[in-house]
Order: sequence, then structure tokens, then C-alpha cells
Amino acid sequence: MALDRLIEKIVEKQNPTVAGLDPKLSYIPDFIKEEAFAKYGKTLEGAAEAILVYNKALIDALCDIVPAVKPQAAYYEMYGWQGVRVLTETIAYAKSKGMFVITDGKRNDIGTTMEAYATAHLGVTDVDGTEATAFGADALTVNGYLGADGIVPVINVSKKMDTGMFVLVKTSNPSSGELQNLELEGSETIYLHMGNLCEEWGKELMGKYGYSGVGAVVGATYPQQLTELRKELTHTFFLVPGYGAQGGTAKDIAGAFDSNGLGAIVNSSRGIMCAWQKEDGCKPEDFAAAARREAEKMKKLLTDVTGEIKLP
Amino acid sequence: MALDRLIEKIVEKQNPTVAGLDPKLSYIPDFIKEEAFAKYGKTLEGAAEAILVYNKALIDALCDIVPAVKPQAAYYEMYGWQGVRVLTETIAYAKSKGMFVITDGKRNDIGTTMEAYATAHLGVTDVDGTEATAFGADALTVNGYLGADGIVPVINVSKKMDTGMFVLVKTSNPSSGELQNLELEGSETIYLHMGNLCEEWGKELMGKYGYSGVGAVVGATYPQQLTELRKELTHTFFLVPGYGAQGGTAKDIAGAFDSNGLGAIVNSSRGIMCAWQKEDGCKPEDFAAAARREAEKMKKLLTDVTGEIKLP
Repeated sequence: MALDRLIEKIVEKQNPTVAGLDPKLSYIPDFIKEEAFAKYGKTLEGAAEAILVYNKALIDALCDIVPAVKPQAAYYEMYGWQGVRVLTETIAYAKSKGMFVITDGKRNDIGTTMEAYATAHLGVTDVDGTEATAFGADALTVNGYLGADGIVPVINVSKKMDTGMFVLVKTSNPSSGELQNLELEGSETIYLHMGNLCEEWGKELMGKYGYSGVGAVVGATYPQQLTELRKELTHTFFLVPGYGAQGGTAKDIAGAFDSNGLGAIVNSSRGIMCAWQKEDGCKPEDFAAAARREAEKMKKLLTDVTGEIKLP
Repeated sequence: MALDRLIEKIVEKQNPTVAGLDPKLSYIPDFIKEEAFAKYGKTLEGAAEAILVYNKALIDALCDIVPAVKPQAAYYEMYGWQGVRVLTETIAYAKSKGMFVITDGKRNDIGTTMEAYATAHLGVTDVDGTEATAFGADALTVNGYLGADGIVPVINVSKKMDTGMFVLVKTSNPSSGELQNLELEGSETIYLHMGNLCEEWGKELMGKYGYSGVGAVVGATYPQQLTELRKELTHTFFLVPGYGAQGGTAKDIAGAFDSNGLGAIVNSSRGIMCAWQKEDGCKPEDFAAAARREAEKMKKLLTDVTGEIKLP
């Protein structure tokens, strides 16, 4: 099961970090943008070209120390189909460099429509008998509001393709409690109920290290819930957003890991991508090296918490 | 506010139907596919070309009697960025023919990421000072599991662009109750809670006909909940999936409308798109005419329920 591949990469690199690739134009050094605009004008195509150059350099700088990348679909869609083409190219490039790719799309729908999303992002598309890969990521984030009808199609594709998913359980944002923290009759919260559904759904995709292919998104900004959910959801691997820019610290995340230092992968997007804008005296040309330095710093902070990361 | 524009088109055409454009290759007549594959091969590009030709013919056949189309993003993504390019072209073509376009993407995220989705699908993208339209729909379906952080960015773009959204409240699928029907402390259901949030969020986008720009998705397959929600959510316009192929009938939907025959727009995707496959003796070449005949039949069934549709 695909999260086994992720787990092996985390252990190999001794690093439970996923680098978010959320490429706003304002994050990208001018010299890259100027070259792209010179070729394609200030157009969606020009923006997409700048993003691709930027992403590839970040992947080159990170691929031997960071096990995974998480491109956020929204930022690619913002630059139209031209941006979406660059999402495809970014995924293929990261995979060619040995990285595990989680497309953060929070997709959700039912039946044949959810099958179409699963096929798009994780599977192979049938074109009248010929197979073609649309996006080809290793895992996809999904939203479980529609129940099993929105999850089972992803499980089916994942069985065939050795891929996985992360279901939104307790998100990192300030208003996440508006719905997720409400208590059901019997005082179970909605986020815990959703987490228990992940455990149930995951039985269909159990991996060899005790974690299933149905992971959960649980924010770094709610350490208490993170610890509670780790205890309850013993077979569910966590994707943890909210570290760094959103305020979560390595200490806040301690509760997300099991006794082997596994159980979670922590995302940093702006922290790594924009390191060059924050580092004292960093030249724009050194953006990729600055990203690597920031990733090394984050790895150190996280492994101070996990200790040596071991396969069970 | 954008749903005012939708309401005016519904009244003008006396038809509360939205035609879903969910273009699986198997729905498309062979002669269209063969021509596309001859040009581009059995590739994602070939599939995308066939979809575009099919969609345009359907739009031509429907645009004077059906007020709106709803392309489902999943089916375009299944054909890669090439399919997503055709989503862009389909939206532009439908708008050029005077139709209201609802992109069914069920997008959800937080803060700047949700801003990126709202900009992508409803707004204009800033490319270093130059504005470009990525997708340019009139409304977007969204998932509210993340609370206001996932809705406010869409409200902000909608204020500027005169667009709107439909939030998933009670979906049409069999497993929708797994989460949505759970009762909170005090016995309110999750779907009703979500519906009440729509009423609250909608105050920021109130339109001149009593409905806000924050609509709700409520399935035709649950008539009792549809009637309950219509009574409770007096300012929330409904997008109603589940008619036809999923089992919902015109009678099931009666409770979705107000006394003016407004308050809801009913989706049919396969019913209209695949009418040529079901109609006795229909030649594949007549697929668009068959879609129009099916749309006329649906209009008659719905307006038998609504009576004359009037502005308040």
C-alpha cells in the first residue's frame, strides 16, 4: 500500500517532512519571472513557466533530504489550464527524483464522479482502450463530507495503483471548529467521528507497517486534538499542516508520532519556499539553497522530537 | 449578486433546469471520437477534442431553452490538463451563448489557498500587474467542512465579480447520511446546521429577489429534507442534483420551490447528455436534438410542479 512507500522514504531520509509546493508568483524571485515573461508575456502561460522553473529548482535542492512534496492544486488552477499543465509536470519531475507526491486537492464527490477524480489524480485514464496518465500522484487529499460514496472510489483506484489518500479530519485553520468540533449526541465530536470512519475505511488498504492507505489531515495548530487522535486512530497516518507560518511548532506536533517516530508527516510550504525572502542577506539567486537550509533546520527540530525513526 | 442573474434567466426561459456537462467518453457518439482520434490519436488531447466538439453541440442545442450549464470538474481533470483546457473553453462558449455557468468543483480549503480557488474559478488572476481570466464561471460549488475560512474568500471574490456559490448541505448519494444526518447535541442534524451557516454567510451577498449568493446543494433523492430545508433556509437558493438517473422525480422536488416557483434549479447530466442512447431509433448524429427533446420534457415536468415562474 502506498503509505508504506512513504513510510520507507521517511525512514530512509530520517525526515518526517513534506515540502508544500504552493507557488504564488510573489514567492518567486524576479529573475525567474522576468525570463518567463520575456518568453511568454505577462500571461497565464508566462506565470506557469516561472512556476515550473521555480518548482524544479526547489525539487532539485530538496530531493535527497526531504521524502515528499505536496503541490496544492489551488495555486496551479489559479493560473488556468496552463498552471494545471505545470502541476502535471511538477508531479512527474518530483517522482523522477524519487520523491513521494501528495496532491493537495481536497477532492470530493460521489460514485462515478469520484471515480473520475481518483482516476485523474491517482490512476490511469482509459482513452478508448489506450491508457494515459492524467496527473499520476502517489496520494490525494480528500474531503469526507459525502461519506463512503466519496471514499470507496479512491480506495478502489488505490488498490490497483498502490496509492493512498488523506481525509480531512481536524484542519489547522481558526474556523475549523465551526463544524468539526461540534458534539454529536453521546458527546463524540465530528472530527473524531470522521477519524473513526478513516480507521474503518482503512481496513481495505492496510499496509505492512500498521498504517493504512487512508490517512488523515490533522492540523499542527491543535496539539491537544492531535494527541487525542493519535491515541484513538492507531492505524491512521497523519498529514499535518499548520507548521511554521500558521503557528504550529515542533513541540506542538510531538503527540502526532508513535513510539517509532512514525505516524505523521509534517508539511511546510511558505517556510521552505520563501526561506530566501526571510534569510538575512540571502540573494534571490540562492533561493533553492535557502530552501534546503530551512528544510535541514526543520528536519533537526522534528527529529529532536521523534528521535531515530524506525520501521516497526 | 450573481444568483440574481441566474434567477432572471430561469424566469426568462420559464425553466428551472441546469444541464450538467459531465463528458465521459462513453457518452460521446463514435463519429465525433473517430474524427478527434484521427487528428490527435487516442491521447488525452484526442479525448479532450472530442469532449469540446460534443459540449459545443449540446450548448448550441440547449442555450435558448435551458438557463444554465454545470460542468463537473472531475470529468475534465480525468483527461489531464488537456481536459482542463476544454473546461475553460466550454465555460467561455456557454457564456458567449448567454448561459449561466456553475462549475461543479466542490472546492474547499482555507485562507490564501481558498482565495486561489475563488480567483481561479470565479475571479481574475493577477500576473504581475496584468489581469487574466483562468476559468471565469458564474458560480462554484464548495464544501463547507472547514468552516468560514473556506467560504469568506469566495464571498469576497463574489462581491467583486458578481458571482456566487453553492455549499454542499444534503447531498443526493446513498451514504450522504453517514455524516450529514448525524444529530448534534440538541438534536439538530449536521446538514441543517450547515444550511443555517449558509443563511448566515449569505447575509454578505443578499440579492434583490430575496435569495443570497450563497446557495446550497440539496439532493432530489431526499424529498423530506428538501422540504424541511426550503422552510428553514428562506434566503438560500438550492442546486438540486439527483434528478433522473439517480432516481429523483419532479414530484420529489416539489418542496424545493417557493410560491413563485423560484428557490431551486434542478440538474440533469446523463439524462440530457445521453438521451440519444436511450431514445428509440435515435441516430448518433441526432444526439444534440435528442438532448433538446429530453430538456423540453424535463422543463414540462418541472413547470407542472412550479406553475408559472415569477419574480417576487
